Amino acid sequence: MRGLWLENQNMSYRENIPVPQPAKDEALIRVLRAGICNTDLELMRGYYPFTGIIGHEFVGIVEQASQPAWVGAKVCGEINVSCGECSECRGARFIHCTARTVLGISGRDGAFADYLTLPLRNLHRVPQGVSDDEAAFSEPLAAAVGILEQVAVHPTDRVVVIGDGKLGNMISQVLALTGANLLAIGMFKEKLALLEKRGIATGFAQDIVPHKADVVVECTGDPTGLELARLAVRPRGTIVLKSTYKGTATVNFSAIVVDEVTLVGSRSGPIGAALSLLAKRVVDVLPFIQTHFPLEKGLQALEAAAKPGAKKIILTIAE
Amino acid sequence: MRGLWLENQNMSYRENIPVPQPAKDEALIRVLRAGICNTDLELMRGYYPFTGIIGHEFVGIVEQASQPAWVGAKVCGEINVSCGECSECRGARFIHCTARTVLGISGRDGAFADYLTLPLRNLHRVPQGVSDDEAAFSEPLAAAVGILEQVAVHPTDRVVVIGDGKLGNMISQVLALTGANLLAIGMFKEKLALLEKRGIATGFAQDIVPHKADVVVECTGDPTGLELARLAVRPRGTIVLKSTYKGTATVNFSAIVVDEVTLVGSRSGPIGAALSLLAKRVVDVLPFIQTHFPLEKGLQALEAAAKPGAKKIILTIAE
Repeated sequence: MRGLWLENQNMSYRENIPVPQPAKDEALIRVLRAGICNTDLELMRGYYPFTGIIGHEFVGIVEQASQPAWVGAKVCGEINVSCGECSECRGARFIHCTARTVLGISGRDGAFADYLTLPLRNLHRVPQGVSDDEAAFSEPLAAAVGILEQVAVHPTDRVVVIGDGKLGNMISQVLALTGANLLAIGMFKEKLALLEKRGIATGFAQDIVPHKADVVVECTGDPTGLELARLAVRPRGTIVLKSTYKGTATVNFSAIVVDEVTLVGSRSGPIGAALSLLAKRVVDVLPFIQTHFPLEKGLQALEAAAKPGAKKIILTIAE
Repeated sequence: MRGLWLENQNMSYRENIPVPQPAKDEALIRVLRAGICNTDLELMRGYYPFTGIIGHEFVGIVEQASQPAWVGAKVCGEINVSCGECSECRGARFIHCTARTVLGISGRDGAFADYLTLPLRNLHRVPQGVSDDEAAFSEPLAAAVGILEQVAVHPTDRVVVIGDGKLGNMISQVLALTGANLLAIGMFKEKLALLEKRGIATGFAQDIVPHKADVVVECTGDPTGLELARLAVRPRGTIVLKSTYKGTATVNFSAIVVDEVTLVGSRSGPIGAALSLLAKRVVDVLPFIQTHFPLEKGLQALEAAAKPGAKKIILTIAE
């Protein structure tokens, strides 16, 4: 089969990759579309050592499965594959499984290929009315929804989202559903305009009212985002950390103690809930799409995705 | 009256300080005993610019008050004096009042003197059976109790307390009351022995089981404590931050995002609950006392308190 293969930080397009053999509890999934994520670019830069097929945002069709009811289903999938036996799994923290593999990121070939395999328990059927392009966003949208699994946001809360990238936009859309008093802070007028169109208030860093927000989400992808978050959050307020980047950040922890601020690291979330929001048409991910590339032009697609200010590039792998 | 006066990082013992005049809602309190806290030493080192009488751990007798029922009462006091009108006070976060003064720390003369004033709403009567020495610990003990106001600790939780100073010891004692599986980590055998005597398991850094603790409390007073806390906490676990120190700490925030760890800054807590624990004899603070000094030997007392490994020094101000 065809696929984009990463090895020693070199990416290649290959046509002679063997089709993966699903294990007993797994499905063989024919990939329809797959989105290029910043993590894919980070893997190419050596963020984490990985050899194999990258890609983890996908929608596909189940071609083989031990349970016949799944065959032919259009699905998205939870990308963390857990062992079910370690202390994290026993604590129902499956995405933190100590023996986990992660689709296209760690120990498991990913979605930039004709086929992938995932356990049936990882799969979610794509609801009626959700397009393939939309479904390809279920994984990053789930990461936005995950915030509400970790932190209670009330309609009476002041919420500030710092970051106007794709993730920041989805987070703002999802948190706006709570009815909270929300302000999205960004750097680019045209990105913020997407939120303004949906009735979400936006602004720049200078529009932050110091120390008034109950909940702040930091999703700039940059260490400086945390400084703005500290400026925005009130004493005893909560900062949700969504940014991952290489290296460290330096923080005045004494001030966090004095102000009794809570910092909550937040990685991923529930794919099923993300698909459900898409089906209800209450979030809109289509404006993020820049363009589509066929899989055989995957290297060009990755190049386009790495350009500053690029929007979402989607690989069209099958119809 | 007599008092220890800080000015431009110079501490002096004075005998000609005017007795403070209580405002309408305030009590005039004759100080009996007052404990020397690390914050007092930090103020002398310039942690925060303050001019006046330092000291905030005290027990005293109400000598004057607009409500006669208070006169003659033996009291401890909440040290943050709030305005009652700002957004923090309206949100019931009184210790974060934006216009607050803090006894012996910020904008308000403190307890290392014959008299102090505090609003009646800040006062708590010392229960029967609690000695003056014990009551002098109510403020730091309250800081330990405050953790349980912010974080739920269950009998099924694994808890690690990192830090064997006085605060760390009190935190271990208070958290042990929850019935949690508790391990106190320290550096000094003789300090840990105080906890062992009370049936609390103790160990050194090498005894930390990596990534298993549901709740970790970092109270070492040092940036390296956070590294140990990160080692101890499980994915989606909670680190309570209690340490304040000059300067910053450098942290890999991406790892906090990936592991979805929560960091909770925690400063102070409820004095009334601390006095109640002392009255119930379920925590023991007396082993921390090194010695007593009379107020007029306050400079020597501060010097003794600043020595490495010093235990609690208490100023005996009146009987």
